[in-house]
Amino acid sequence: MNSNKFSLKLEKATNRHKSRLILALDYSEVFSRSERGLWKEKKEQLLKKSLRVLESVAEHLAAVKINMQLVLPLGLFDDLQEIVDRVEKYGLPLIADCKINDVGHTNQWIARHFFNAGFDAVIANPFVGWEDGLNKVFEEARKQDKGVILLVYMSHLAAREGYGQLVLTSEGKKVAQYIIFAEKALKWEADGVVVGATYPKIVKEVKTILGTKVPIFSPGIGIQGGKIEEAFKSGTDYAIVGRTILNSPNPVETAKKIKEMINYAIGSLGEK
Amino acid sequence: MNSNKFSLKLEKATNRHKSRLILALDYSEVFSRSERGLWKEKKEQLLKKSLRVLESVAEHLAAVKINMQLVLPLGLFDDLQEIVDRVEKYGLPLIADCKINDVGHTNQWIARHFFNAGFDAVIANPFVGWEDGLNKVFEEARKQDKGVILLVYMSHLAAREGYGQLVLTSEGKKVAQYIIFAEKALKWEADGVVVGATYPKIVKEVKTILGTKVPIFSPGIGIQGGKIEEAFKSGTDYAIVGRTILNSPNPVETAKKIKEMINYAIGSLGEK
Repeated sequence: MNSNKFSLKLEKATNRHKSRLILALDYSEVFSRSERGLWKEKKEQLLKKSLRVLESVAEHLAAVKINMQLVLPLGLFDDLQEIVDRVEKYGLPLIADCKINDVGHTNQWIARHFFNAGFDAVIANPFVGWEDGLNKVFEEARKQDKGVILLVYMSHLAAREGYGQLVLTSEGKKVAQYIIFAEKALKWEADGVVVGATYPKIVKEVKTILGTKVPIFSPGIGIQGGKIEEAFKSGTDYAIVGRTILNSPNPVETAKKIKEMINYAIGSLGEK
Repeated sequence: MNSNKFSLKLEKATNRHKSRLILALDYSEVFSRSERGLWKEKKEQLLKKSLRVLESVAEHLAAVKINMQLVLPLGLFDDLQEIVDRVEKYGLPLIADCKINDVGHTNQWIARHFFNAGFDAVIANPFVGWEDGLNKVFEEARKQDKGVILLVYMSHLAAREGYGQLVLTSEGKKVAQYIIFAEKALKWEADGVVVGATYPKIVKEVKTILGTKVPIFSPGIGIQGGKIEEAFKSGTDYAIVGRTILNSPNPVETAKKIKEMINYAIGSLGEK
């Protein structure tokens, strides 16, 4: 594993909380222009709801991931800062699920804004390629001692359309897209990859490429159908869970239970 | 061409301003946590600078495109609304360059937030695939009578790594990735595609697939090296220009000149 501030913070939180569970804090609220008068109140509700669940489950987490559901309504340099401060107070690494996939100069701005706003890592799509593409994200990350996590295989049904397609390399070899991405994660020295827990066979294949060099983060557990034991036995290092915890009548119990199920699955595999 | 509100608004602005130029309003400012006290002032500067250039060049535009450089610092339901209101006042369609590439439920939230914030179209990456992927973006767009523009080939150097790779289809055929994406744009009834002006040969190839059904939007003119005449002769319908105008000592003159160069190139091809 890499030894930048993100990776070290993740390792510390993992050990301190004995947890390999990452919370996807994906609450949102509908904002419409015809009801501008309600926006302030809605932002407060969204913030309160997010802080409440965060506070209650923090001790069971290894990290927190935030996506556009929160960033767009709360604003990166506005209300969202309350969440950033709180995550920092809990000593948890904060991952921006911004799935960067633009040209170089825009990629750099996106990474810079998230890092400057207090995030420890960004998620990016390797489909963009390197030159005048993701090189700018890695440059910014290295400059700020932060992390980059690459998408290798996503958790949704259509993932096979892109991530699962067969590519003909310039050497004339047939290689699955996700294998190309996993190899890029190694070459570019990424700090993690995303592989959906809904595809344990692919987790296994990616693990044989990455070994212990690049950890695997797996979303898709619970509502999306991924199973904890299967994922971790296949090579998942961290489970990313959102709605299963957020929509639970008892988020703390659910988070604790997931954490324990992960530890049980890992225990039966020996220490990571 | 489709006949939703976005496409009609684009057609009207194109005719009214006799322009096929789209402004990429990509100014930004550096915000750091160690200087929180400066944020308010920086947001105001960024807003003022953006409104000023917008006001001065609006009459030469067919549409405005906004990316994360502005969205992240200004906030979608906050200061950015001043820009949205202004673009609306000028009767120009507003495109969110959010390059959506997530799982279904998140994609839907992203599209919903941008549409509800007053944007007329969103840009999405077809690499995501359909089921529990971009289907949710198209569903939200159709429900709100808005547009979806798909990335087919981007303007940066590394575009060949992903967009240019050869894919082996399930029928065993070798097809370039961007051809697959162009065919998806037709099948999914997209309201436009993005093909970099830096790759005129690819613009031409994509045009033979899309004909007049789906317009081609081409970024990469100017600083990135794309040439107006070559792009439009190859099939580009709209040029997306940012830094060449924004960093010009005289943005109005530059925008006017680009508009006229486009019209000259189109003129020599006859009416679109």
